[in-house]
Amino acid sequence: MRLALAQLNTLVGDLAGNGQSILEAARQANRNHADLLITPELSLWGYPPRDLLLQQERVEQQGAILDGLCQALAREQLHLSILIGAVEPTGDGFRPALYNAVVLVEATGWRPVARKQLLPSYDVFDERRYFRPGDEPCLLSLPNGVRIGLTICEDLWVDPSLQGGRLAGPDPVAALIAEQPDLMINLAASPFSADKPALRDALAAQAAQRLGCPVVYLNQVGGNDELVFDGASFVVDARGSKQLQLQSCGEDLQTWTLSDRLNDGSASTSASQLSPADNSDPLELLFRVLVLGVRDYTRKCGFQRALLGLSGGIDSALVAVIAAAALGAENISALLMPSPWSSQGSIDDAEALATRLGLTTSTLPIQGVMEAFDPALEPALGGAPSGVTAENLQSRIRGTLLMAVANQQGQLLLTTGNKSELAVGYCTLYGDMNGGLAVIGDLYKTSVFALCDWIDSAQASACRASFDLPHQGDLIGEEIRLKPPSAELRPDQKDSDSLPDYPLLDGLLRRMIEDRVSESTLIADGADPVLVQRIAGLLKRAEFKRRQAAPLLKVSPQAFGSGWRLPIASS
Amino acid sequence: MRLALAQLNTLVGDLAGNGQSILEAARQANRNHADLLITPELSLWGYPPRDLLLQQERVEQQGAILDGLCQALAREQLHLSILIGAVEPTGDGFRPALYNAVVLVEATGWRPVARKQLLPSYDVFDERRYFRPGDEPCLLSLPNGVRIGLTICEDLWVDPSLQGGRLAGPDPVAALIAEQPDLMINLAASPFSADKPALRDALAAQAAQRLGCPVVYLNQVGGNDELVFDGASFVVDARGSKQLQLQSCGEDLQTWTLSDRLNDGSASTSASQLSPADNSDPLELLFRVLVLGVRDYTRKCGFQRALLGLSGGIDSALVAVIAAAALGAENISALLMPSPWSSQGSIDDAEALATRLGLTTSTLPIQGVMEAFDPALEPALGGAPSGVTAENLQSRIRGTLLMAVANQQGQLLLTTGNKSELAVGYCTLYGDMNGGLAVIGDLYKTSVFALCDWIDSAQASACRASFDLPHQGDLIGEEIRLKPPSAELRPDQKDSDSLPDYPLLDGLLRRMIEDRVSESTLIADGADPVLVQRIAGLLKRAEFKRRQAAPLLKVSPQAFGSGWRLPIASS
Repeated sequence: MRLALAQLNTLVGDLAGNGQSILEAARQANRNHADLLITPELSLWGYPPRDLLLQQERVEQQGAILDGLCQALAREQLHLSILIGAVEPTGDGFRPALYNAVVLVEATGWRPVARKQLLPSYDVFDERRYFRPGDEPCLLSLPNGVRIGLTICEDLWVDPSLQGGRLAGPDPVAALIAEQPDLMINLAASPFSADKPALRDALAAQAAQRLGCPVVYLNQVGGNDELVFDGASFVVDARGSKQLQLQSCGEDLQTWTLSDRLNDGSASTSASQLSPADNSDPLELLFRVLVLGVRDYTRKCGFQRALLGLSGGIDSALVAVIAAAALGAENISALLMPSPWSSQGSIDDAEALATRLGLTTSTLPIQGVMEAFDPALEPALGGAPSGVTAENLQSRIRGTLLMAVANQQGQLLLTTGNKSELAVGYCTLYGDMNGGLAVIGDLYKTSVFALCDWIDSAQASACRASFDLPHQGDLIGEEIRLKPPSAELRPDQKDSDSLPDYPLLDGLLRRMIEDRVSESTLIADGADPVLVQRIAGLLKRAEFKRRQAAPLLKVSPQAFGSGWRLPIASS
Repeated sequence: MRLALAQLNTLVGDLAGNGQSILEAARQANRNHADLLITPELSLWGYPPRDLLLQQERVEQQGAILDGLCQALAREQLHLSILIGAVEPTGDGFRPALYNAVVLVEATGWRPVARKQLLPSYDVFDERRYFRPGDEPCLLSLPNGVRIGLTICEDLWVDPSLQGGRLAGPDPVAALIAEQPDLMINLAASPFSADKPALRDALAAQAAQRLGCPVVYLNQVGGNDELVFDGASFVVDARGSKQLQLQSCGEDLQTWTLSDRLNDGSASTSASQLSPADNSDPLELLFRVLVLGVRDYTRKCGFQRALLGLSGGIDSALVAVIAAAALGAENISALLMPSPWSSQGSIDDAEALATRLGLTTSTLPIQGVMEAFDPALEPALGGAPSGVTAENLQSRIRGTLLMAVANQQGQLLLTTGNKSELAVGYCTLYGDMNGGLAVIGDLYKTSVFALCDWIDSAQASACRASFDLPHQGDLIGEEIRLKPPSAELRPDQKDSDSLPDYPLLDGLLRRMIEDRVSESTLIADGADPVLVQRIAGLLKRAEFKRRQAAPLLKVSPQAFGSGWRLPIASS
């Protein structure tokens, strides 16, 4: 039996368009003589559909799309079955009103064949808002006698020892053991975070060994708002050895043959083990995920071009490189907006980077606008703004210039702030936080340095070339990578005037954010009590800024954004 | 048996402070000879605690606080028991790791006595993110022989015919019928929306009749970020007639005696039925809810003073009145920021309103800053900004002035936009959307008019006086209430140049937002197809703005904010 795995990049909510992509994949799978085409979780909807699932008429539209697919299979004589991720109404009038389901589509008709049993409602996931859990193992018996166990994404995440805690509820893999399936398929929509690829491999391998059969793990690919799905679908045999690996960060369609011999779990393993994914270098994978996230958000929002402010610092330099890789340097404009406090070095560094990348730049000095604000504010302040107010004002002038250019020229403004800044509030709301997408908002400053070092390394050369970036020599450049970080909002300002060194700061922030550890534990573990209290206070007080921050590309297990839900007015 | 109902206003996450408030209520209840003190759902935490519940050490802290309360009862010889809303760890290592529980606290110790069975995970609620459902009826038998059925908030919301759909799961009220309780208590944290007070009354009355016993409905009060809890707790007898009514929008502590005769459901009903709540006028209640929301958000965030921009239009006028009622006119500053396109009428109207209210004002003309931006943008745009870009620029200049003053003077900036604008994107991100709290962001423009008409009516006089507002004659004024809405961002601009009349627009928006109805249904129902498509397109395209909007006070069943979760890049 021949399987085709369609690792699709869908547009959320576009049932008709996604159905068309599935049909296109079916045509190709048919040409490749596949018997069964597999698509990702909720492939008809794109994941996550969020509150689009509450639009009753959209749910009703789904039936017509599935009917149309059946008719197309018949009309075009495509002799294969398709597993499609879709919703199934519970029909009993209670809320939530849907199951997260798999339907089997054939020329003769379609029917639901599986319901998701473990519904993630943690981090960025809200599945209990929309779905009721299924309560039975899902076994699909095909006319050819092959018995397929079906699970949906979280249904595979059942081993606390691998993943660190699991959802309460049934073990959908265990429930399949008694059914002795010939194959288990997991339809997934699993967003990237750095720890995920290895985890998915381990969970699938373990399930294969428990069930004594191969496992197909099929993930969605593409960026949907803050989430980037890296794809990297694969097949493991009954011993858990990789038999097929689809690419990371791109659409892919591959076929794989389930042979009878595979079922005994012994003789089948290929001698040549495949690598876990295309990219074993975590920094390369991170780079490619960010590029995919920027490209998809920009294009799926209807933009062709993007804009950013280029300060000469490392954050905006990294965003410029990612944006050029995502959209082509010819589609990226950069504004240099020097103030009287900007160093000549920063201006030179920004210009040199733009030249290396081939970006269009304009230089807009802000002194004239700064000088106009002082008398404008005089009636309220009785003088010119001072201190942090004056610093914020510069940032907001730049943010306003960026938005004016983006509005007039129809570009998406990219935000260049990093996670360390967002954590402690070292950023200006309505200023440098302006933008439609925060590209590196989930990268601590130390990760920004590491990624830039990698970009300038020889190891990145092939990756840079694959994105039509200059691939020889430095791209970011030592001047930018090695200088002390500074916001340059007052003379000779350095980040280190206000914040501890980034390795120390990021270490504390990781414990507070990723591990949600309290000040007292950090102090008990030996951290400086004064520093810990100060950073914890900054983290809490910046919540109001994060609430109004641009969507940011999640690449860590705990990003700010929809998976971080803290009250503002609280103790 | 004498019950005390403590309608508390807690600070989210402040377990120690909230515990102290409960102890203070216990002292007062003891003075009033109460046997049992009842506090709201999660009263030790404040509702909603959100991701504070994921901080393991905070959960552990709870035990020490409860121990301390027991010791205080013993030390102070307070001879009463307390029902406290708290969390109960499941202890099995799976996620979610908590129950939403009730603990009984006495001088001799404390113990969990109830677990919430129906966990709301719709609209603004995410309880499945944190809690596992309880699965059994909760009956508390006191030493004096009284048998109390315990339910927590949503556990009472079990009649689809009253509330329009219900959660799948058990009926916790039905499960208590066989237990024949003498009393049912519902500990609630039910945020205000206009339909809620009558619904709560109906649900409690129905439960009383089903159980044949009185029902105590005890709600939290106070503003917590976007949610405003209106309190309005009450007791109904076994026939569903009101026996006690606590106030709306304020802390309250009342005692009520459960007599044996009440249990037979016949002879007990007082002849004098109480009114459903202090305020039967929905507009008065709406006003008081908004005032409470502004006051609590401001103070719980640590501010004493607030700032707003006063345009002479009706939205900022309404926000100014609400803010003055919430914080006192002496704590409100207003900026007038006329441009060359501002009419003299608007400036006069804004000044006259500020005078009537007694606000501090400053006038900051923006022409100078506007003129400075044109040459600053020239290198990028090759000329001055035009069209919508120029309009947005004026709004962002004003937003930047407001933030500079708020930063320098330590005020909370209040946002003045309404729901109609937020819906169609008739507002400027990083401009007039700037602020820490969107006071009327859940009021359609037609509701803004209605509320302002009420404020200027004779019916509002007593309410205005209660907030130390001028209570005679017009406060908003006819000039502001009756003039055609205009953003005044270009000469002679009117909202009606860009948008349909507000009654028509708001009617369509209500169907699209509150009912999540599609364009095709609206058109089938007779709406103008071109208009419907245009408004639906605007609604969708403004999602990116709403994602970065300030928290807004929810007063409707479907507000923008945390209960509105749509993708941005979608179809």
